[in-house]
Amino acid sequence: MSTSKLIGVVDIGGTKILAGLIDQSGELLSSRRISTLAGYGAEDVIARTVTIMRELLHEIDAPEEMLEAVGCSIPGPLDCNSGVVYFSPNLGWRNVPFVEMMQRLLNVPIAIDDDAHCAALGEARKGAARGMDCVVYVTISTGIGAGIIIGGDIYRGAHGFAGEVGHITIEAAGPPCSCGNFGCFEALASGSAIATRAKQAVMHGDDTVLSKFHDDLSKLTAEHVVNAAEAGDAVALRIIESVGAYAGIGLAAVASAFDPQMIVVGGGVMSSGGIMLQRARKGFLERTIPPLGFLIPIVPAALGEKSGLWGAAALVSSTRR
Amino acid sequence: MSTSKLIGVVDIGGTKILAGLIDQSGELLSSRRISTLAGYGAEDVIARTVTIMRELLHEIDAPEEMLEAVGCSIPGPLDCNSGVVYFSPNLGWRNVPFVEMMQRLLNVPIAIDDDAHCAALGEARKGAARGMDCVVYVTISTGIGAGIIIGGDIYRGAHGFAGEVGHITIEAAGPPCSCGNFGCFEALASGSAIATRAKQAVMHGDDTVLSKFHDDLSKLTAEHVVNAAEAGDAVALRIIESVGAYAGIGLAAVASAFDPQMIVVGGGVMSSGGIMLQRARKGFLERTIPPLGFLIPIVPAALGEKSGLWGAAALVSSTRR
Repeated sequence: MSTSKLIGVVDIGGTKILAGLIDQSGELLSSRRISTLAGYGAEDVIARTVTIMRELLHEIDAPEEMLEAVGCSIPGPLDCNSGVVYFSPNLGWRNVPFVEMMQRLLNVPIAIDDDAHCAALGEARKGAARGMDCVVYVTISTGIGAGIIIGGDIYRGAHGFAGEVGHITIEAAGPPCSCGNFGCFEALASGSAIATRAKQAVMHGDDTVLSKFHDDLSKLTAEHVVNAAEAGDAVALRIIESVGAYAGIGLAAVASAFDPQMIVVGGGVMSSGGIMLQRARKGFLERTIPPLGFLIPIVPAALGEKSGLWGAAALVSSTRR
Repeated sequence: MSTSKLIGVVDIGGTKILAGLIDQSGELLSSRRISTLAGYGAEDVIARTVTIMRELLHEIDAPEEMLEAVGCSIPGPLDCNSGVVYFSPNLGWRNVPFVEMMQRLLNVPIAIDDDAHCAALGEARKGAARGMDCVVYVTISTGIGAGIIIGGDIYRGAHGFAGEVGHITIEAAGPPCSCGNFGCFEALASGSAIATRAKQAVMHGDDTVLSKFHDDLSKLTAEHVVNAAEAGDAVALRIIESVGAYAGIGLAAVASAFDPQMIVVGGGVMSSGGIMLQRARKGFLERTIPPLGFLIPIVPAALGEKSGLWGAAALVSSTRR
């Protein structure tokens, strides 16, 4: 039996659990993804996670004692010190003592952090910003969030809320945001903003291929709009031009505040590197003060679905030891 | 002759030089302020600064050898590593090798930094945020700038531009800014924005005490508007309500990005702690995501004109040694 140790890494999302094992040389030995449903309780998700972890160990003939620690990426807000997930709208959890619950099943040190923080750390250690120590990762998905890497590690701010850039106001009299405010970066440039604009266009009777969703608008997603724009649909293109310009404004705010070496963008509509990213880069150049726009590249995340896993690994392999 | 060492501290502004001496116990032994005119060349300003420094030493019977180092706060942008002031609109300087020039006259280590950085460091070490290690200082004056303190020291970003929060867009289709962009925090909430709005009201023939400036609008300043608002002038009050709300939006962006322990505000219209600060606090509470608005106090700078001097002292007394 080998005496080398293994680190477990877990990325819990609204509709999936992704878990893996990393060896001492930093190699991802194996990983597995299972689908979950929104509304699964914490007890259920934790039990399934531990089951996957045990299966992965079993598959490589490694006894459970070889598991040294587990790092977990979880949609927050959460407290990485106490190990409690305060409130996760994506998971429907409130005040879940995650670390305590998981340690009852797996008696090893367990570290947790917010998914945007983990993705940022993963991209800075292993991905698009590999080797950089001053990086902002912005995820443009249903919502907009950020992870800030300063001095090579996660910057959390005084109360754990640093990087809430999705709620920077970029249009004082803009549309309402999920946070209760108006004209937030998230309200104007997220995947939800794209879908909302497209639904309005369809309801308005605009001439677009997206009209096929007329009778079931709930199925119309940001990805459909991006694909239609890439295919030359004029209405979809107009929406992406506008939303991309707002994304550029939001990313410019991030640049002016943090002046990072690089801004890494992730999330469905951005990571493809297509038309939305092009428009966001254009807006970013127009809206940053010189020379920041030229100094700070906007680069799509390189690790895809695994950004969070690599960040989770960094939680236990350096920050926590 | 005492063997204890002294540190020289200097704050150079567009229209003044403020200099002082600090002893080993951290006490400000003496200081002197002289007025200068915009357009004084670097050679002239540096010579005058060195003269004041020698006079201050002479007054306490201290030989020049007791001067161990000098810290200087200078309006940037500048490079604190090379000691070159790249471009200072306030001073009219371009590519001035400040440290090299000053060392020809005073052969001691000399450290320089941007005035907003120094004020932030001063307020964090000795002022309103004394003892805090995660603080943002925002100066709302003719322009708007910030100094970021993380881990107790100045956070400069990857290229020295961190804290350019005055150029965060808060109203995408807003009025033009000096930076060439539109709707920046600075364009909507600075002293210049207040003065511009008041001039427009006077030209429009609005019923306000500020109409006395009708024939020489260039004399109408933000301070006049604040004073008129404090005295109950309805037009001035409407302007301060509006500009204060925008200031709140800009400060909320700072809170969302950095999540500091405190935001310290300085600059003419803010530091008085009057009506403009009240309105900014109101806007801040309305525009921050909960619970950030309640967690982060907005506090006026406590050191007045001396924030920069204390920051300059910290440049040589800890960061640089």
